[in-house]
Amino acid sequence: MRASDRAADSLRPIHFEPNVSKYAEGSCLVQFGDTHVLCTATVEQKVPSWLRDSGRGWITAEYGMLPRATAERTNREAARGRQTGRTQEIQRLIGRSLRAVADLEAMADLQVRVDCDVLQADGGTRTASITGGWVALHLAFQRLVKLGVLGAIPLTDHVAAISCGLADGEALLDLDYLEDLSADADANFVLTGRGAIVEVQMTAERKTFSEEAMLQMLVLARRGTDELVSLQRQTLGLE
Amino acid sequence: MRASDRAADSLRPIHFEPNVSKYAEGSCLVQFGDTHVLCTATVEQKVPSWLRDSGRGWITAEYGMLPRATAERTNREAARGRQTGRTQEIQRLIGRSLRAVADLEAMADLQVRVDCDVLQADGGTRTASITGGWVALHLAFQRLVKLGVLGAIPLTDHVAAISCGLADGEALLDLDYLEDLSADADANFVLTGRGAIVEVQMTAERKTFSEEAMLQMLVLARRGTDELVSLQRQTLGLE
Amino acid sequence: MRASDRAADSLRPIHFEPNVSKYAEGSCLVQFGDTHVLCTATVEQKVPSWLRDSGRGWITAEYGMLPRATAERTNREAARGRQTGRTQEIQRLIGRSLRAVADLEAMADLQVRVDCDVLQADGGTRTASITGGWVALHLAFQRLVKLGVLGAIPLTDHVAAISCGLADGEALLDLDYLEDLSADADANFVLTGRGAIVEVQMTAERKTFSEEAMLQMLVLARRGTDELVSLQRQTLGLE
Amino acid sequence: MRASDRAADSLRPIHFEPNVSKYAEGSCLVQFGDTHVLCTATVEQKVPSWLRDSGRGWITAEYGMLPRATAERTNREAARGRQTGRTQEIQRLIGRSLRAVADLEAMADLQVRVDCDVLQADGGTRTASITGGWVALHLAFQRLVKLGVLGAIPLTDHVAAISCGLADGEALLDLDYLEDLSADADANFVLTGRGAIVEVQMTAERKTFSEEAMLQMLVLARRGTDELVSLQRQTLGLE
Amino acid sequence: MRASDRAADSLRPIHFEPNVSKYAEGSCLVQFGDTHVLCTATVEQKVPSWLRDSGRGWITAEYGMLPRATAERTNREAARGRQTGRTQEIQRLIGRSLRAVADLEAMADLQVRVDCDVLQADGGTRTASITGGWVALHLAFQRLVKLGVLGAIPLTDHVAAISCGLADGEALLDLDYLEDLSADADANFVLTGRGAIVEVQMTAERKTFSEEAMLQMLVLARRGTDELVSLQRQTLGLE
Amino acid sequence: MRASDRAADSLRPIHFEPNVSKYAEGSCLVQFGDTHVLCTATVEQKVPSWLRDSGRGWITAEYGMLPRATAERTNREAARGRQTGRTQEIQRLIGRSLRAVADLEAMADLQVRVDCDVLQADGGTRTASITGGWVALHLAFQRLVKLGVLGAIPLTDHVAAISCGLADGEALLDLDYLEDLSADADANFVLTGRGAIVEVQMTAERKTFSEEAMLQMLVLARRGTDELVSLQRQTLGLE
Repeated sequence: MRASDRAADSLRPIHFEPNVSKYAEGSCLVQFGDTHVLCTATVEQKVPSWLRDSGRGWITAEYGMLPRATAERTNREAARGRQTGRTQEIQRLIGRSLRAVADLEAMADLQVRVDCDVLQADGGTRTASITGGWVALHLAFQRLVKLGVLGAIPLTDHVAAISCGLADGEALLDLDYLEDLSADADANFVLTGRGAIVEVQMTAERKTFSEEAMLQMLVLARRGTDELVSLQRQTLGLE
Repeated sequence: MRASDRAADSLRPIHFEPNVSKYAEGSCLVQFGDTHVLCTATVEQKVPSWLRDSGRGWITAEYGMLPRATAERTNREAARGRQTGRTQEIQRLIGRSLRAVADLEAMADLQVRVDCDVLQADGGTRTASITGGWVALHLAFQRLVKLGVLGAIPLTDHVAAISCGLADGEALLDLDYLEDLSADADANFVLTGRGAIVEVQMTAERKTFSEEAMLQMLVLARRGTDELVSLQRQTLGLE
Repeated sequence: MRASDRAADSLRPIHFEPNVSKYAEGSCLVQFGDTHVLCTATVEQKVPSWLRDSGRGWITAEYGMLPRATAERTNREAARGRQTGRTQEIQRLIGRSLRAVADLEAMADLQVRVDCDVLQADGGTRTASITGGWVALHLAFQRLVKLGVLGAIPLTDHVAAISCGLADGEALLDLDYLEDLSADADANFVLTGRGAIVEVQMTAERKTFSEEAMLQMLVLARRGTDELVSLQRQTLGLE
Repeated sequence: MRASDRAADSLRPIHFEPNVSKYAEGSCLVQFGDTHVLCTATVEQKVPSWLRDSGRGWITAEYGMLPRATAERTNREAARGRQTGRTQEIQRLIGRSLRAVADLEAMADLQVRVDCDVLQADGGTRTASITGGWVALHLAFQRLVKLGVLGAIPLTDHVAAISCGLADGEALLDLDYLEDLSADADANFVLTGRGAIVEVQMTAERKTFSEEAMLQMLVLARRGTDELVSLQRQTLGLE
Repeated sequence: MRASDRAADSLRPIHFEPNVSKYAEGSCLVQFGDTHVLCTATVEQKVPSWLRDSGRGWITAEYGMLPRATAERTNREAARGRQTGRTQEIQRLIGRSLRAVADLEAMADLQVRVDCDVLQADGGTRTASITGGWVALHLAFQRLVKLGVLGAIPLTDHVAAISCGLADGEALLDLDYLEDLSADADANFVLTGRGAIVEVQMTAERKTFSEEAMLQMLVLARRGTDELVSLQRQTLGLE
Repeated sequence: MRASDRAADSLRPIHFEPNVSKYAEGSCLVQFGDTHVLCTATVEQKVPSWLRDSGRGWITAEYGMLPRATAERTNREAARGRQTGRTQEIQRLIGRSLRAVADLEAMADLQVRVDCDVLQADGGTRTASITGGWVALHLAFQRLVKLGVLGAIPLTDHVAAISCGLADGEALLDLDYLEDLSADADANFVLTGRGAIVEVQMTAERKTFSEEAMLQMLVLARRGTDELVSLQRQTLGLE
C-alpha cells in the first residue's frame, strides 16, 4: 500500500460535475481527489488569423492556477506580468491533446477555447485538465449540434490523461502531490478511448529508468484512462 | 417589481460556504445570487518592507476573474501581461475595506493576503469579495488564536459591502449585471457592523443625481449590510 | 484655523491659465495652491474600435506625474514599464467625470484625449485635473465650433471637483498634502455647475465615519465647486 | 529511402567543434546536418537563492534562436519582450536533461549556465542543444578540475538526445525540418551513455499511434544516441 | 535669412528660470524658443549597487516628453509599458554629458538624478535638457554646499549643448523642428565652458557630408555654447 | 606600439565570410579580430505601415548579442523582457547608416531587415555590424537583381564603419575591448566608399578633448574605412 492508502494501480476518487457555469457553452468541474479544476469551453466565430479562409476550425486551451490552490501561496501570474514556462507548457499540452481527437475540418470557422483553472491542486492538474476539458468540449459541441450550427459532434474519440510514477522500482498510478515530490520518475500519458497514444511525457526526476519501467507505467496508465473514459461516458449519459 | 423579480430593497439569495480550501488558513465561497467568489486568506510571517520593524502587521488583497466568469469571455490577465485598471481599483478597495476594521498593531509582523477570485460574475463582484473576504479573514484569525499565535482576533468590527443603483428615479439594492448595465447611477457602500461608513463610491453612469437620491441609496445599503453582517455571524457561529 | 492657515471651508488660491500649449487644441495650466497640473485636450478623428459606426464620439483621459512633482522623488512609470493602480484609478475617474457632462451623440466620430500631467503635487491632483481638464476640453470644443466642425459645444454643463476631509470630527475643504496625510477620512466630490452629483468617493483612512460627517463634507464640497465653476466661467469669458 | 536520402535509422552528418568561444569556460558548436547550435557553459560562484546554504550546486539552461535561423524570419524575442512558450519548454528540457547526469552535491555552491543559441535551424534543435550542451558542460568541468576548484568531473554519465518520427507507419531517426512537418507523430528521446531513459516526449501530430510504434522509435533512438555518445567521447578525447 | 527668420549663426530666444520646483534640490525651466524643458535635480544618499563602497558618487539622467508636447500627440510611454529607443538614447547622452564635468570622487556616496521633462517640443529638446540640466545640477550642489554636506561644488566646468544642421550646403545653428525636418544633416555638440568637446553626434539625414561642413558646424556650435554658458552664469549669478 | 601589438593606425585582422546562411537572402559572418558578428539580410514584401503607398522601400536593422559573447555573461534580453538602451541605440545607428547609401525610391514596396548578432565581442561590435551588414545587404540585392525583382542594385555607395580612441593624447584605430575600457575618449565613424561622412559619434570617456584630436581621429578613420571598403569589394568580387 502507498502513502495515499491506495493500491499501486488505483485512481483517487474521480468526480465530474458537468454544466457548472451559467455562461460557458460547455463546462465541467473535475476532481481527481483533492485536485479540483474548473473547465469551461467557449465557442467563438473567429479562428486565429493563420487559419482564416482555410476551411478549418481550431481548439486552443489556457491554464491557470489560483494563488492559494497550493499549500504555499504562489504569486498571481497576472500580477507578475507573465505566465511561467510551466503554465505555457501545460496549456500547450492540453490544446494538442484535445485537437488530437477533433475533426478540425468539420468545425469550419469555429474556435473553441478551453479554460482550465485549478481551484485546488494536489498533483495531476494537467491530467485532470485534459480529462475534464474533453467533457467541457463535448458539452459545447452538443449545444452546437442542438442549435443546428454543427451537424454532428466533431470529435473522433475520447481523450483522457493520467500520471504515473516510479517509487522504489514500483510503478504507481495517479500520483498525489506528496507522491509526486518523492517519485524517482514521473510520466503523463494522454490516451484515446480506443487506447491509442496521443502524448507521452516521461521525466527522470531522481533516477533514470529502464524500458521495462516505462512499459509498466504504460500498462497502469491504460487501466487508468479506461476508467476515466468510462466515467466521462457516464457523466455525458453516452451509455 | 424589478426585472430580477425582487423588491427594490431585497438582496439576492446570499450564501457563505466557509472552509472550502484544503490549504488556506481561512477560506469562504460567497454567493450573491449568480455571482460566486472564492475568497482565501493566507497568513505570512513577513510584512511589506516599508512596515518592517514598525511593530505593525498588514492586510492586503488581490482580485481576479476567471476568463469565462462572464457572459462574454474576457482575455486572461496573465496572458495579456498586465492587470487592468479595473482589477487594480477593486483590489485596492478590498484591501482598504478590510484594514478599516483591523487592529494592525495587534497583528505585529504578520501579513494576511486575501485573494478574491470570481468564478462566476453577475454584478456586485467587489461587494461580494469584501463581504466574503471578511469571513475568510476572520477564519484565518480564529486559527491563529487557536494556535496561540494571537491572543485575540484583531478585528474591531464586521465589514460588509453592497451595491445600489438608481433606475427611473428609484433606488434599488444589490444590482445584478443586467440591472447594473441599465442603471442611471450606481454606488458601492462598505459599512461596518455598527453602521459606520468605510467607503462610498458613487458614479453617475447615465444621469447625474441629487443628494436625496444619494441618501435613499444609503438607507437601502444599510439595510443590506445589516443582513449580510447577520449572515456572516451565522456562518461563523458567532451567535 | 487649520494647519494651512485657512478656514475650514476655504479653498487654496486657485488659478487657471488657459491656452498654454502651442500645439494642443485646448489647454489649461491649473493651480490649486502648490498643486500644478498641465491639462491638454487633443482632438482625434478616430474613435475607439468598439464605438466605430455607432454615431457617437468619446472622451478619454490620461494622468501622469513628473517624478519630482513630489517631496520624495517617485520612479518614472515609463521606466518601470507600467502605470500604477493609483494612476489608472485616477485617469478612469477623470474620463468618467468629463463624459458625464458631454453629449457624446453630438461629437460623432470625434475623440478627445485629455492629458493631465502633474508638474507639482501638494494634494488634490485628481480634483485639479478634472477641473482644469474641463477647461481644456471646453477650449478644444470652442476651436472646433470656430472651425465649423461642430455646430455647438457638446457640453451640457460644467464639471468641477474638490476634496474634503475629516480632522478631529471637523470637515475641511480642499486638503493639501499634509492635511490629507493626517485626515481621519477623505473624500472627493465631482459636481456639475447645477450642483448635481457626478462622482463621490469617500474613504475612511484612520476612522470610520457617520452619515452626518458625510453630509457636512458634501455641503463644503458644493461651496467649493460653485466657486471653481465661477472661476472656470471667468477664465473662458463666459460671463 | 526517405526524402532526405538517408536510411530510416541513419543520423544526419554530425559534427562537434569544441572550444569555439574565447570567453566561455566550456563551449561547443554542434551540427546535426544543417542545424547548427552554439553551446556555451558559464560557471558562476552563485547558486539560485532557494539553494543557498544547501551544499548543492545547480545547472540551468537557456535557449534562443537567431531571427533568421529559419526559412521564414521570426521576430526577435528580445524585441517582443517575452520568450515564447516553446522557448521556455525547450530550455526547461535542456536543463532537466543535463541535471539528470550531474552530481549536484559534488558541485557545491557552483552554478553552470548552459546557453544554447541556434544559428541555423533545420529540425532537431532541442536534441542538438542537449547533446552539444553536454559537451560544453564537460569542458567547463574539465577546466574546473584543472584549476583545482573541483576534485573530479561531477558528471555520472553522458547524455544525448535524438528525435524520431512516424511516417506512413515507419519509424524514422533524426528528422529534418521537412520530415518533421509531414510526420504523423514525433518524439524526442534523451538517453544516457548506459542507455537509461532521462526524458521521453512523444506527440501525435497527425495520427495517434500504438505501443508498437512507440517501441520502434525507442529502438532507433537508442541506436542514434549510442552513436552520438561515441562522437562526444571522440570530441573530448575520452577514448 | 532662414525660415525661422534668424541669421545662420543665431540662437532662438533662450530663457532659464531657476528654482521653479517647490521640492527639488535644484530645478530650472529652460526655454530654447518654443522648446520648454523642466529640469529637476534630486539628491539621493544612495549610489547604484556597482558603485557601493567605491568612494565615488554618480549622476544619472532621465528624459521624458508629455504626450502633447508635440504637434501630433504621441502615446504616453508609461501606458505603452516601455521607453522608446530614442528616449533611452537621449537620457544616456544627458547623463554622460553631465558626468563629463563632474568630479565624482568629490561626491562620495551621493547620487544626483536629473529629470528632464519636455513640456513643449520644437526641436533641440536634448540640447536644452543638457544645458538646463546643468543649471539644475549646479543649484542642487549649491544647496549641498550651503548645508555643509559638500565642501565645494564638485563641477569642474560648465557644460552646454546645441544643435546644428546643414541646409543647401549652409551650416545653421539651433534648428527648430521644421528646420530639423528638412535639414540634409544634423548634429548635436556638447561642449564645456572652456570649449573642450564632450560629445559630438552627427548624422546625414538626406545627404552625406564633408569634413569641411563638419568643421563649419563646429564653429557655429562653439559660438552657440559660449552664449549659453554666459546665460548660465547670469542665471546663477556667477558673474 | 599599443597593448594590442599593433601600430596606432592599423586595423585588427579583418575577415568577411559571405553566404554563411542556408536561408537568408544575403548573409555575412564578419570578424574584426576576436569580434565576430553574423549578419543576415531578410527581404520582405511589406513595408512599415507609415510607408505604405509611398512608392518607397525601407531598410531596418536589429542588433543582439549572445549572452556569453562577452568575458562576463550578460543576461539574455529576451529573458529580461526588454532590449537595453544600448541595444536600441546601436540598431538605430546600423539602420540609419545603411539607409544613407540606399536608394529607397528604387526599392519600392520592399523592406530589408538586417540582423546583426554578435557571436563574440571584443570591442567594435557596432562598426563590424555596419560593415558586415552592408555586405549582407548587397548580397540580398544581388539575388533580387538575379531574380529580376530589381533592375539594379539600389545602393549608391559602400558604407563602412570603424572606431577610434584617444590614449595619452594619441589617436588609435579600431580599439579592442581592453583599449576601449582605458581610452580617454572614443569615437565611431561611418563613412562612404567615396569618403563622405554618414555618422560621427564622439564621446569623452575620461577626458574632454580638442578639435585637433577630433581631426586626428577622422584621419585614422578614413584610412580604416578605405581598407574595409576594399575588403568588401574583394569579398563580393566587385574588382
